[in-house]
Amino acid sequence: MTDWSFYGRDRFEEARSALEGKAHVTPVARCRALSEMAGCDLAFKCENLQRVGAFKFRGAFYMLSTLAEAERARGVITYSSGNHAQAVALAASFFKTRAVIVMPEDASGVKLAATRGYGAEILQHGFTPQERQVFATHLADERRLTMVPPYEDPRILLGQGTVLTELLEQEPTLEVVLVPVGGGGLLGGICAAARAFRPALEVYGVEPEVADDWARSMEAGRILRIRSANTIADGLRSLEPGAIPFPIVKEIVRGILRVNEDDIRRAMLLLLTRAKVVAEPSGAVSVAGALVHAARFRHRRVAAIISGGNVEPATLAEIATPPH
Amino acid sequence: MTDWSFYGRDRFEEARSALEGKAHVTPVARCRALSEMAGCDLAFKCENLQRVGAFKFRGAFYMLSTLAEAERARGVITYSSGNHAQAVALAASFFKTRAVIVMPEDASGVKLAATRGYGAEILQHGFTPQERQVFATHLADERRLTMVPPYEDPRILLGQGTVLTELLEQEPTLEVVLVPVGGGGLLGGICAAARAFRPALEVYGVEPEVADDWARSMEAGRILRIRSANTIADGLRSLEPGAIPFPIVKEIVRGILRVNEDDIRRAMLLLLTRAKVVAEPSGAVSVAGALVHAARFRHRRVAAIISGGNVEPATLAEIATPPH
Repeated sequence: MTDWSFYGRDRFEEARSALEGKAHVTPVARCRALSEMAGCDLAFKCENLQRVGAFKFRGAFYMLSTLAEAERARGVITYSSGNHAQAVALAASFFKTRAVIVMPEDASGVKLAATRGYGAEILQHGFTPQERQVFATHLADERRLTMVPPYEDPRILLGQGTVLTELLEQEPTLEVVLVPVGGGGLLGGICAAARAFRPALEVYGVEPEVADDWARSMEAGRILRIRSANTIADGLRSLEPGAIPFPIVKEIVRGILRVNEDDIRRAMLLLLTRAKVVAEPSGAVSVAGALVHAARFRHRRVAAIISGGNVEPATLAEIATPPH
Repeated sequence: MTDWSFYGRDRFEEARSALEGKAHVTPVARCRALSEMAGCDLAFKCENLQRVGAFKFRGAFYMLSTLAEAERARGVITYSSGNHAQAVALAASFFKTRAVIVMPEDASGVKLAATRGYGAEILQHGFTPQERQVFATHLADERRLTMVPPYEDPRILLGQGTVLTELLEQEPTLEVVLVPVGGGGLLGGICAAARAFRPALEVYGVEPEVADDWARSMEAGRILRIRSANTIADGLRSLEPGAIPFPIVKEIVRGILRVNEDDIRRAMLLLLTRAKVVAEPSGAVSVAGALVHAARFRHRRVAAIISGGNVEPATLAEIATPPH
């Protein structure tokens, strides 16, 4: 059971003020062609233009802001290899403390350089997320560093939920919001914020059908683990829903929508060529959901969260190459 | 000789008010990584987010707004095959009049569809710009349509010059502006606006070195025609400077900078992956100029005009494919 008192309006407002002047207030964009294709008023909440190019900065910065000064001064650690790693690295640099990031031994040079560019100390260990998590947890203990997990902490959800509280001010008449879901930090935060600020808002998660741990788990009513998540949407390769977000999402969400890999590529290319929005595959999944499941949203006021924009050139080349 | 009284502050202010609520006030973006690479404070004026995806809407709409009602009601015509065609088509639809666009017989289906999508009548004729211009001029005469040329009219320059008057309000301490130059409508308008509003501003044109009609003409002090302009920047394939913009630019501009094809591709890819800005090749030329000629702009406050964002998937695939 979720203790909803932890996700009251005051908690989100506290997160908003901690982020004020630190995180960007990201713009809302629209594109007539895409609204027409989706048959609804389709707005894009551009977290691709957030610091580090993804919403992840909100949760990481907010969590660091809640730490006692002595605890924060000892430093923080995380084990993500993607946007969360950069978010923790940048947030730590804002607080002039150090971040240790455990990355896989086969991490790309680009990602290593980007994370190092934010001033983090990088340790490469193992190849699977599990190996990294175990290693990082031991290291946190040994070096007395605070773990900043990608989604397994309520403060992370509060930070990510500010995407919605901000969006509701920008789009006061919003009826539907579509949210990419990997581990569930963003979807959980948005569900909790919707409950606090706008219970009538319809929240949907969207995920790749080849990484449908959320859809299956929701259908089963409990957390299920899938065997593989071989999707182009590298931020959504979770094998199971997070234990903190799952019960929140379960109670609030109207559904988890599946999209296939071509849907994701097509949404990315349409965002680029029509809306001039640079979305990474994980960030375009919400728009894919609006297009594929258009019948559900006909004539309504819909926002798709563009959760990030950090895309590799090879992925750009792939999605731009016909046929689509 | 240019009659500068036509390009006084009052004329630009008139164009600004005609465009108010019609053209978008486009945002200014920045990206720390690109500023660091260029060694200056590098801002992007995002005309890729203008209506029809390019600055061209400003000039076309403003020119149409100056026509007598009866003249406008008879309809307008142009012979561009690119962004100007869509700009004229959309502007005409705003005034509920018709636009005839003469496009080449080998125009891509995508471009035909986009222009038709704005409600224009399309006639396909010939293969070269000259053939289209002659045909369109005869047709204008025959059907009593008003020609809206891409850059050979002072009203077009006034409209395009509002990019700068708007930018100066957004960036009051700007020192340098870099402008892609093809026919010269945008550069001419910006030079004239700089003269009227901020004579100390340093205006530079930037063009592909394989389409360096402006650089050569400036060096010669008179309009020269080049033989070919085989550049990826399809909006900058002019073979000679426009007769209306040339004398204006000649008097005001600090220089025309050349960039090569790889510089353009690299700037486009950096804009996409780092700044999350979708620029077409012509629109990225200004950023290529800032990077290649960085020594000239060290530590200064520089704006690069991202003139448009209409990029074909094949071009995206090309620029994203290594090595760059």
